[in-house]
Amino acid sequence: MTFTVGAVELELKSPGSLTHRLTATLREAVQTGRLAAGAALPPSRTLAAELGCSRWVVTEAYGQLVAEGYLAATTGSATRVRGAAVPSVATLGEPLAPQPRPRFDLTPGVPDLAAFPRARWAEAYRQAVLDLPNDLLAGRALVATTGARTTLTDLLRRTRQVQEDPTQLSLTTGAGAAIGWLTPLLVQLGHTRIAVEDPSWPGLRAVARRGGLSPVPIPVDENGLEVAVLNRHRDVRLALVTPAHQFPSGVALSASRRLDLIEWAQRVDGLIIEDDYDADFRYDGRPVASLQGLAPDRVVLLGSLSKALSPAIELGWLIMPQSLILALLGLDLDRIVSPSPLTVEALAVMIERGWYEQHLRAQRLRYRRRRERLITALKHYLPQARITGLAAGLHLPLDLPPTTNTRDVVRRGAALGLGLVEADRYRIRPRPKPGLVLGFGNLRDTRIEEAAERLGRAVELSAIRDSPATRSSR
Amino acid sequence: MTFTVGAVELELKSPGSLTHRLTATLREAVQTGRLAAGAALPPSRTLAAELGCSRWVVTEAYGQLVAEGYLAATTGSATRVRGAAVPSVATLGEPLAPQPRPRFDLTPGVPDLAAFPRARWAEAYRQAVLDLPNDLLAGRALVATTGARTTLTDLLRRTRQVQEDPTQLSLTTGAGAAIGWLTPLLVQLGHTRIAVEDPSWPGLRAVARRGGLSPVPIPVDENGLEVAVLNRHRDVRLALVTPAHQFPSGVALSASRRLDLIEWAQRVDGLIIEDDYDADFRYDGRPVASLQGLAPDRVVLLGSLSKALSPAIELGWLIMPQSLILALLGLDLDRIVSPSPLTVEALAVMIERGWYEQHLRAQRLRYRRRRERLITALKHYLPQARITGLAAGLHLPLDLPPTTNTRDVVRRGAALGLGLVEADRYRIRPRPKPGLVLGFGNLRDTRIEEAAERLGRAVELSAIRDSPATRSSR
Repeated sequence: MTFTVGAVELELKSPGSLTHRLTATLREAVQTGRLAAGAALPPSRTLAAELGCSRWVVTEAYGQLVAEGYLAATTGSATRVRGAAVPSVATLGEPLAPQPRPRFDLTPGVPDLAAFPRARWAEAYRQAVLDLPNDLLAGRALVATTGARTTLTDLLRRTRQVQEDPTQLSLTTGAGAAIGWLTPLLVQLGHTRIAVEDPSWPGLRAVARRGGLSPVPIPVDENGLEVAVLNRHRDVRLALVTPAHQFPSGVALSASRRLDLIEWAQRVDGLIIEDDYDADFRYDGRPVASLQGLAPDRVVLLGSLSKALSPAIELGWLIMPQSLILALLGLDLDRIVSPSPLTVEALAVMIERGWYEQHLRAQRLRYRRRRERLITALKHYLPQARITGLAAGLHLPLDLPPTTNTRDVVRRGAALGLGLVEADRYRIRPRPKPGLVLGFGNLRDTRIEEAAERLGRAVELSAIRDSPATRSSR
Repeated sequence: MTFTVGAVELELKSPGSLTHRLTATLREAVQTGRLAAGAALPPSRTLAAELGCSRWVVTEAYGQLVAEGYLAATTGSATRVRGAAVPSVATLGEPLAPQPRPRFDLTPGVPDLAAFPRARWAEAYRQAVLDLPNDLLAGRALVATTGARTTLTDLLRRTRQVQEDPTQLSLTTGAGAAIGWLTPLLVQLGHTRIAVEDPSWPGLRAVARRGGLSPVPIPVDENGLEVAVLNRHRDVRLALVTPAHQFPSGVALSASRRLDLIEWAQRVDGLIIEDDYDADFRYDGRPVASLQGLAPDRVVLLGSLSKALSPAIELGWLIMPQSLILALLGLDLDRIVSPSPLTVEALAVMIERGWYEQHLRAQRLRYRRRRERLITALKHYLPQARITGLAAGLHLPLDLPPTTNTRDVVRRGAALGLGLVEADRYRIRPRPKPGLVLGFGNLRDTRIEEAAERLGRAVELSAIRDSPATRSSR
């Protein structure tokens, strides 16, 4: 199928949705110079008529190419081909348009996006918007009603055995925002370093570093954080940990290590920041209780909806010991990065109606089954790989044979539609141990088998290529 | 009406809602010691039966008192009177429960909360939640679809004559968040000071200071920022301004001053940060176009929904010159504080359906009428006061007679149910000029007359009390 732009005739590329095809066709025409800088695109109405499609298809394609910098739109005149590439906010690392997720989404940290309870969340939000007293619409200073605060506190007591009362609970937009708010204050209190697990999620470490705390890597073994190593760092009085399900190694902090860690905090008069990121999901029994419940005076607990519902909601919470609240008094502190009160109330409605825990139960079953099926498939297609970690969470670590070039596996996997992340990416001190961290949260059930098969192929291809001669150059 | 807690009989206070009365009664009983530390409150079901009310009334009252620190709630056991006051997040300046707005709300910066288009916002959000592609639920990295980005850009071009394309637009949670993100980066680029208007909104100045920029106060006259004074500060290359409607003086930056300011920015190779906080509301003609439209390479524009819809939505935007985007490249930057993609899409639905501009038109008429009626009432009850500022925005400056003790007016006003803010609160270098900044955004139409009457009374009482002998102690 062809269409014309000025005097230029273009052939509509395939495959994909019409929007995608039109976008790709125009993008290529600009890249190859078939459409010259300054050339006017036809009005969306005209092109839609020519293509026999809705006008929306054309405006979406134009919009995408404006966002990518290929076209320029000016009010009242035609959309035109842009002269030269210009910097955009995308150069600052902020994507201009949603990137499609990989077809076989094995990226860690992403929950089941298709399972997001859209209708219920929309209904809970609607209820919140209609019911909220006018005064609460004045904004962030009034971030949660007493009811919502109590509802969330009760939930955390019930599900995470948290010891707190609503007066210690702050609402945030997520764990990163909470760390971003807290670290400059901890610096004001005299902290300069923060112990972090090695390996761990790089995002939170980076936020702490930006806030003025140097991360001190502490190794993790099969019992979690090696507290003995932490004990040797005499100048560290802060630790950021994932006790319920260590990310990414997948182990839980053992009972004796928990006590050791609390003892450490008491001895150095320190604080433990507990990132309770995916503790709702444990498949071989009840979730491990929070560390905060054991030592509420030494633990700051961070939680969010990112895994339970979706990161797109931008809602989290922060529970601080009363001693920390006291210590922060008088510091030059900005208000905690607050979520929308409407979102907070919507969560309260979800919890009160039982929808939230119903969703968690359904997801627990779904993730458990998905994990088991993935493991079965991996054992079949990658018998030489070793799966580690607890039956918990949304990811599993996969050790690859010692001669594997993991980077090559990731590259080849991408070409096969697999979203993969190297285990090394989470390590601070790299270890020459090939492996991946596989997320299965957003992997569709119907694609598990094929994902494992393709991953097997990617590993195999890498092994063939990775002859002893090239291996040393890794 | 009486009820019992253990062996203690309490008389239900009045007036107010039942929740309010119960809360007040219990609070007083704890404060006065009638209910001793450790005393158990009856289960909510029991007390509700005794009072003949819904259980919700009791849980809300208990929850409020837990939040205030009077009661302690523990799962599985009774709610009890707390031993001693303990620090709570409220001590960090984060309110634990919504504070009711004053009955006569003359606080600047608050829009008409009762006019928030609840049904339409809920519907737009529902549409966004139901329509959003799964992939966008992965969170902040995908903060806006191309469609939403283009819709918002088009709106800003149309309503604010902004010169930009969607590639320069970042979504934020508001102006404060935008400044909070930008200032540490400007410090990395070598900036140390930022010119701010005197008077101006203290919130943004404080965020800039916390980010490492010292505010340099520049006076404002009837033509806006005194650019001649700015020109004398040779080491300042940043200015934070409110050109469309200076806050709080209510003037617009004159045409020649606009050119002077742009010339300044070009001469010093500097940047102007334009806080476009209430420019949608001008009652004597079309809103003044944005400064950004005149000098897109020198102006960072900040906008938000705080005045147009409600601060509770936590949504704003930031438009940066391409030169700044280029300069920020390579800095250690965190992602811009992102709003929820669901909220962004909901705004796009509001705009696309015409609901957003319809709301603005309706509010413009409403605020205009409200302002005129307030001025009429003020002229009647406070003939000695002088109203200044343009017919615009949601506030008006009110100069009081030279002998007035403004602090006393605010105090007496509060006792009469008036929410008042002294003009001095916005000044960096205080001037001995009594006055208030009156917000009328959230003042109910039916209360205008009475608000002015009560304000007249507060001023009169202060004048009587403020004899020459006490005046000097102000």
